[in-house]
Amino acid sequence: MSRDVHALPPSAGPRELHRVGVSGVRKPLSVQRPDRAITLATEFNVHVDLPASRKGSDLSRNAELLAEIVDATAKEPVRSFEEACLTIARELLTRHTYAREAHVEAVAEYFLTRGISTQRRSFEDYTLFAEATTWRNGTGGAPAQSWSIGAEAVGMTACPCAMETARTMLESEFPLLKDPSLQKLPIVSHNQRNRTRLAFEFHEPGEVEADAIVAAIEEAQSSPTFAILKRGDEAQVVLNAHRNPKFVEDVVRDVLAGLPARFPKLPGSTVVTVRTRSEESIHKYDVTASHRLTMAELRAPSA
Amino acid sequence: MSRDVHALPPSAGPRELHRVGVSGVRKPLSVQRPDRAITLATEFNVHVDLPASRKGSDLSRNAELLAEIVDATAKEPVRSFEEACLTIARELLTRHTYAREAHVEAVAEYFLTRGISTQRRSFEDYTLFAEATTWRNGTGGAPAQSWSIGAEAVGMTACPCAMETARTMLESEFPLLKDPSLQKLPIVSHNQRNRTRLAFEFHEPGEVEADAIVAAIEEAQSSPTFAILKRGDEAQVVLNAHRNPKFVEDVVRDVLAGLPARFPKLPGSTVVTVRTRSEESIHKYDVTASHRLTMAELRAPSA
Amino acid sequence: MSRDVHALPPSAGPRELHRVGVSGVRKPLSVQRPDRAITLATEFNVHVDLPASRKGSDLSRNAELLAEIVDATAKEPVRSFEEACLTIARELLTRHTYAREAHVEAVAEYFLTRGISTQRRSFEDYTLFAEATTWRNGTGGAPAQSWSIGAEAVGMTACPCAMETARTMLESEFPLLKDPSLQKLPIVSHNQRNRTRLAFEFHEPGEVEADAIVAAIEEAQSSPTFAILKRGDEAQVVLNAHRNPKFVEDVVRDVLAGLPARFPKLPGSTVVTVRTRSEESIHKYDVTASHRLTMAELRAPSA
Amino acid sequence: MSRDVHALPPSAGPRELHRVGVSGVRKPLSVQRPDRAITLATEFNVHVDLPASRKGSDLSRNAELLAEIVDATAKEPVRSFEEACLTIARELLTRHTYAREAHVEAVAEYFLTRGISTQRRSFEDYTLFAEATTWRNGTGGAPAQSWSIGAEAVGMTACPCAMETARTMLESEFPLLKDPSLQKLPIVSHNQRNRTRLAFEFHEPGEVEADAIVAAIEEAQSSPTFAILKRGDEAQVVLNAHRNPKFVEDVVRDVLAGLPARFPKLPGSTVVTVRTRSEESIHKYDVTASHRLTMAELRAPSA
Repeated sequence: MSRDVHALPPSAGPRELHRVGVSGVRKPLSVQRPDRAITLATEFNVHVDLPASRKGSDLSRNAELLAEIVDATAKEPVRSFEEACLTIARELLTRHTYAREAHVEAVAEYFLTRGISTQRRSFEDYTLFAEATTWRNGTGGAPAQSWSIGAEAVGMTACPCAMETARTMLESEFPLLKDPSLQKLPIVSHNQRNRTRLAFEFHEPGEVEADAIVAAIEEAQSSPTFAILKRGDEAQVVLNAHRNPKFVEDVVRDVLAGLPARFPKLPGSTVVTVRTRSEESIHKYDVTASHRLTMAELRAPSA
Repeated sequence: MSRDVHALPPSAGPRELHRVGVSGVRKPLSVQRPDRAITLATEFNVHVDLPASRKGSDLSRNAELLAEIVDATAKEPVRSFEEACLTIARELLTRHTYAREAHVEAVAEYFLTRGISTQRRSFEDYTLFAEATTWRNGTGGAPAQSWSIGAEAVGMTACPCAMETARTMLESEFPLLKDPSLQKLPIVSHNQRNRTRLAFEFHEPGEVEADAIVAAIEEAQSSPTFAILKRGDEAQVVLNAHRNPKFVEDVVRDVLAGLPARFPKLPGSTVVTVRTRSEESIHKYDVTASHRLTMAELRAPSA
Repeated sequence: MSRDVHALPPSAGPRELHRVGVSGVRKPLSVQRPDRAITLATEFNVHVDLPASRKGSDLSRNAELLAEIVDATAKEPVRSFEEACLTIARELLTRHTYAREAHVEAVAEYFLTRGISTQRRSFEDYTLFAEATTWRNGTGGAPAQSWSIGAEAVGMTACPCAMETARTMLESEFPLLKDPSLQKLPIVSHNQRNRTRLAFEFHEPGEVEADAIVAAIEEAQSSPTFAILKRGDEAQVVLNAHRNPKFVEDVVRDVLAGLPARFPKLPGSTVVTVRTRSEESIHKYDVTASHRLTMAELRAPSA
Repeated sequence: MSRDVHALPPSAGPRELHRVGVSGVRKPLSVQRPDRAITLATEFNVHVDLPASRKGSDLSRNAELLAEIVDATAKEPVRSFEEACLTIARELLTRHTYAREAHVEAVAEYFLTRGISTQRRSFEDYTLFAEATTWRNGTGGAPAQSWSIGAEAVGMTACPCAMETARTMLESEFPLLKDPSLQKLPIVSHNQRNRTRLAFEFHEPGEVEADAIVAAIEEAQSSPTFAILKRGDEAQVVLNAHRNPKFVEDVVRDVLAGLPARFPKLPGSTVVTVRTRSEESIHKYDVTASHRLTMAELRAPSA
């Protein structure tokens, strides 16, 4: 019988480690949606801390419990993406008896049926993110926990600044443009793919639907984008975007501005994170903006 | 002394193999430019064929000769990116005495100083590609060889179709738009990053400068893109692109159309490849077009 | 009513284009397996050629027919991954009446239940590839077509050469190693992740199951790899791999050597491609090998 | 003259934003090394905060100052990679008069000449990371600042646990293995690429050489890896790695254990971060470990 090498003292001397685990484990996770079960090809990162006294963490336990929990959803779908992460994080603490904290991250592609009109509906692809952390309580109670759920949606932004400058330049070339009847004519600008992420981090019970996160993002971009656009639809998306020009700063602020009405029941302790990236058509680099605050701060009357 | 395992017969029985080698070898390659030497962080793939009688290819020779040839350029820069590939391919045949064919691929990032005006000049980044193949002659002559050099440039396209449809839709909302003085007014459309590659494959002596390849691409996009754009410059790029709307099909054809005048001395046997990809702002997917033909075909009067 | 800009003559003059289409379209494709339907998150590239007379290809038709065909599988799963590609390629020729050739590529992640023993079974992830090409017949018959199906499996290789050299070096340090009873003792070597692809391209009717492709690859690596390995299993995989050391050359030849017995009914015209990449543990770069030949050539008695 | 759109109040109402800027700007940065100047193809992310009162950040200033500072190094190389970041961060605060905080991130590939012996020396590739943050002081003093420098090195780990279990299994198959003279015989295990990052974050003056960071990492892996290895060298690397087996936990702890002696002069406030990832040869997923602490904590006698 070989020694339990993991349980030996570390050769470098005692030194606790914050995170030890497995990364990039891919599994099909079945999640119950209101209308049907869907299967998300999910990538998991799963970690626990390690006490100063142990050489190694029993990593095969991570793979085993991931398999047990995730593979079981093929028969009984889990209630939500973040619920799966929480279940895994709690089980990590159960099986790694020496660990004080467990952390789970999950990313998956997510398809929703969308369309610029009912005749053009088709699948569009989004990304879902979830995390869960559990802490062992000193007092013997249930482990403390926090968790998050977020999504990324690719949409479109048109730049309000280039539009304004272009109008001024065009007005000197085409004086008729100054005619009052043309004041609302959409003017050329640069427009581009915009990737926006919105995530909610919970420290007390609360819930957000993935589809509502996608909707909150798409409403704040200059326009959502669609797989199927016939000729008139294309022009419609272009006009919508140019009537709704947005800096990355506007996208972040507009996502945030919509959240109090959209999610009135979320606890004030919920931490909201928004990050957006416009893949500028006029540059080879991207433009980005981000912010992070609590729902309570978001609801407070602004300065 | 251990056996030479590579020289053993293959355990699966005799079976020649087309390509065996090393991939993803990264090296700093110094190349002489008209004005100064530049160092390209280059990734090499280097392969030879393997006769049916040998179990393995002597791969350490690939790493060794790559090191000798590439590391030596730190002191004496090579004349061109593709010249480096050819030198490596020839040396592969010399050191792998059992090989009949050697193949080298190289990719590197390349910086050029550009600007929308002389006050706005700065580095822009491009990608260079080169390949070389050498064949051992049956008759004892020098090895036959072919080689290629290509580049990718990120620019911008504006869609001519959405522009036309948008004009029609806007004309019914803004009747004054039909005024003859506004016929040339640039109209909103979707615009986006466009990545275009142009490569030249030589089977007899010929030469193309990397900078000329970049120029041939940028001229065929709706507009090049720039790192530094002050407010008026941004609008200028937007106006240029909308006065020059392009489908991916137009980008490929316009690159091709410009080549005979731009490269009058290239041999007719030179194979030209163009590939373009527009990262559509109105879709989550890309639109692509490609074509491949000889300079002789390109120069022939079109049907 | 706006003009049909796509149907205009090209501004650069007449010039046919080999491929115009959409790339990176992501869709959930439902495929029937013997035991159940599975959903593959699939990325499609879809192209047709374009005659010299037309400015543009009607790309919204690509998105539309992709949506119709792929989205319909949510209700009625398609028979196979490559069958879906063929259906799409045929429909491309129907809707692009001016096109002579249509080409479809698809890639998807694929999960199979595997394990080193029945108690350790869990999902392992693989990659599936399929392509289909259709050509319009001059004579009015059904379009000609070819198609392919392939898979990539990540397994493990141990190097036979370093093992042999290490044995010689260890024998001089540990003379007892030369004892005849230790001749079969597995000796240390470098081992690493190996990614191998095997694809079958059909020009006449024939069929290969995805699971059989994965099995053909995994049998030719030093060992398959597994998500769940308890302590004894880990050592077992290590011993298996070191008793079965393989160069990348061996992996390709061993995959090929097994095919005639594994797929006796495939037409001789079937083109087989094998590519393998070992992510060398002793280098920062990879080692690769590849070959391509017909089933008829593979069945011929070797030289 | 068009309005300054960026200076308008935000349409969503006042709301400050933590970070607004440009990402993925690629530039050739020239850095002075003891013996010569080298050029690093560097990717920059550059951000400032935005007050609640402004609609937009003047992003063209970011591109402009990046160009001025980085392009100038072509003539006068900067003293260090992190020094370049600090200079950029300070200049961001100067030009964005409304910002209170500026943040710069930079990543670049870095080549060092290494070899298992002096005859085998060649370039090996590494990654450098640097960050800098500057804060505007309320009291009119110079801005406060922090900065970091880090590197990633790819080496090799061999697993100590599978080695122990394999020995036990082999001893029952080969009883002679238990002979005392064979107690130190290296036994087969799984080995693989290991990627380890080490970074130092400074809050008061201090300095670390990039080459010393690479050395600190490579010493803690089972073995460094090399581009050129002839047959005997390969076996030597394999033997070294198996005589020095490491869990990811060991790699992190061994990196940390070596730092007090290696960097005796670093301020105690320096924050050290180590992250390591082994791309397991026996699994399709990776194993990771990380820790973060101050030099003062690291120097304290461990519990």
